[in-house]
Amino acid sequence: MAELQSRPLVVSMGDPAGIGPEIIVKAFRERPALLRQLVVAGDVPTMQRAMRVTAGGGASAMGSLMLAQVGQLTDLAEVPPGCMAVVQACSLARAVDWGEVSAASGLAAAQSIRWAAQAALNGQARGVVTAPIHKEALSAAGVAYPGHTELLQAEAAAHSGVSVSALPVRMMLSCPGLSTVLVSIHVSLQQALKAVTPDQVLQTIRITHAHFRRAGMAMPRIAVAGLNPHAGEGGLFGREEIESIAPAIELARLEGMDATGPHAPDTVFMRARQGAFDVVVAMYHDQGLIPVKLLGLEHGVNTTLGLPFVRTSPDHGTAFDLAGTGRASASSLIAAVDAALAATGG
Amino acid sequence: MAELQSRPLVVSMGDPAGIGPEIIVKAFRERPALLRQLVVAGDVPTMQRAMRVTAGGGASAMGSLMLAQVGQLTDLAEVPPGCMAVVQACSLARAVDWGEVSAASGLAAAQSIRWAAQAALNGQARGVVTAPIHKEALSAAGVAYPGHTELLQAEAAAHSGVSVSALPVRMMLSCPGLSTVLVSIHVSLQQALKAVTPDQVLQTIRITHAHFRRAGMAMPRIAVAGLNPHAGEGGLFGREEIESIAPAIELARLEGMDATGPHAPDTVFMRARQGAFDVVVAMYHDQGLIPVKLLGLEHGVNTTLGLPFVRTSPDHGTAFDLAGTGRASASSLIAAVDAALAATGG
Repeated sequence: MAELQSRPLVVSMGDPAGIGPEIIVKAFRERPALLRQLVVAGDVPTMQRAMRVTAGGGASAMGSLMLAQVGQLTDLAEVPPGCMAVVQACSLARAVDWGEVSAASGLAAAQSIRWAAQAALNGQARGVVTAPIHKEALSAAGVAYPGHTELLQAEAAAHSGVSVSALPVRMMLSCPGLSTVLVSIHVSLQQALKAVTPDQVLQTIRITHAHFRRAGMAMPRIAVAGLNPHAGEGGLFGREEIESIAPAIELARLEGMDATGPHAPDTVFMRARQGAFDVVVAMYHDQGLIPVKLLGLEHGVNTTLGLPFVRTSPDHGTAFDLAGTGRASASSLIAAVDAALAATGG
Repeated sequence: MAELQSRPLVVSMGDPAGIGPEIIVKAFRERPALLRQLVVAGDVPTMQRAMRVTAGGGASAMGSLMLAQVGQLTDLAEVPPGCMAVVQACSLARAVDWGEVSAASGLAAAQSIRWAAQAALNGQARGVVTAPIHKEALSAAGVAYPGHTELLQAEAAAHSGVSVSALPVRMMLSCPGLSTVLVSIHVSLQQALKAVTPDQVLQTIRITHAHFRRAGMAMPRIAVAGLNPHAGEGGLFGREEIESIAPAIELARLEGMDATGPHAPDTVFMRARQGAFDVVVAMYHDQGLIPVKLLGLEHGVNTTLGLPFVRTSPDHGTAFDLAGTGRASASSLIAAVDAALAATGG
């Protein structure tokens, strides 16, 4: 087996009480080639425990997986073949109980994410994949951010010496055959309507364009969905298409981007899936997430666009009810790793 | 071939300038068994023209289809085997041009629909399937209703001697494996938010329950979607779930219906498709239509719930650009016929 890449992806282990550690280990067992591409930022004893709970059953053929602790990414040349490289990125005094919300878990998860983000910001890592965290644990640990996106955004802004508002980010959800970028996410639908402004839509198109360009696509075909039924039917069912969405598309086109629309929301995802577009800009959370989850929850990938580095994650949570059983599927995590590799040059 | 059923489905021919007449003929050519179950309400010369444009090509093997004009549904016993039974249900002075909007077409379409509705209201027909009409043609003909639903609702209300408001209807969209009933349809998303009231949601659940009961299902499992991301996440992303949707579900359950929710909109359609529910009540047009169109535009069926008879239609329009070519697909119309047959006892 070839040497570990000197500039790997870093995967943060997620909440140690959740399925994160064990799906990371399962990903290595199922796809040993990942051992050359991926370093875990987390807690060594927690990762060892995850190796134990995933060693039995169908995975036994790969039971020979070993763990190699590394101090920093510059030490990777010393990792022996067949070993999962783990950086002790957090302080965790003792093993946490599976499926329990705790401040200790939340802190360990946040520390692991920060370590991964710093590695990417310093250029030592080519990108970050994050295993799932638990919002309540994060909150119990006194972490001031509700989730990954905000935490990574804050780290990146601090690194660049700019305010968070100068670093707008967007969530992209992808499954095989369909990607969608959302203008807004975790707000009420009423609030989401207000977020459909020319500025917000244009910014979303720009961030989308830049992401696909960085991933190597010369001219991504960006379909912009309407907000209202039939994209407003000429103003009959709402005027946001006329007043906000179409002007944003016009400006994006003047900037040289291949943005089209506003398209009827109920058919644009179908058309994208058939190959007419590379990505759909969706006006609100469920407009984009309903089609992606319908097509492929098992292989859903969440990508944060707008950060100075690539960050992906599986499209599921900590699954506390499954933690420690070794039964959780690694397929969405593997898809997230593949997406991060593809977005950083394969 | 067995005799034509004495209580058939009636299919209204739709706009004579659109693809309606020819997809009806194609349905008979592709599924000759339908000749025993279906009578066309429309214009005899228009249907003869549709037979000519569909006679060539791959359909030639079935080129022997003939047309039998019947005066009323009580004459069906006289229709010879292998014949498409057509009632002259409208006045059309001369053939209309394909793909042209005209008052003459709009009037003929409306008359055909009214004939079909009366046959169902009088109990002579077991249900109605409607081929697509054109809104502008209807308007040009001075018909005061924007579409099928409103026209049928008015006919039914007049028949029962009640006001239209006493006969609330809902649109159901179905494709193989997924059915969804919409609380509101052709209004802006802003207006749709206002339509999410306890009364409107409860009424939608009741109408849905009644439809599936009539179709022979003892206790339909009705999933009610939330309005906001994650169904509001306990009020964090909007309060409509707490104030309107949950109370409606509670009342429906007290009335003995199997209604559950509010479910997270981005996963409830996936779960329904996996078999967890028989139908999803969606809070607005695109919430329900995005998943159904993604899964099966070719086989999409539109069913009007709440009428005193079963009414289905294909989930597409008049396709004026295809009219007269014989190339339009009959698959959605056939799916609509199958749905109407299933909903009226097979």
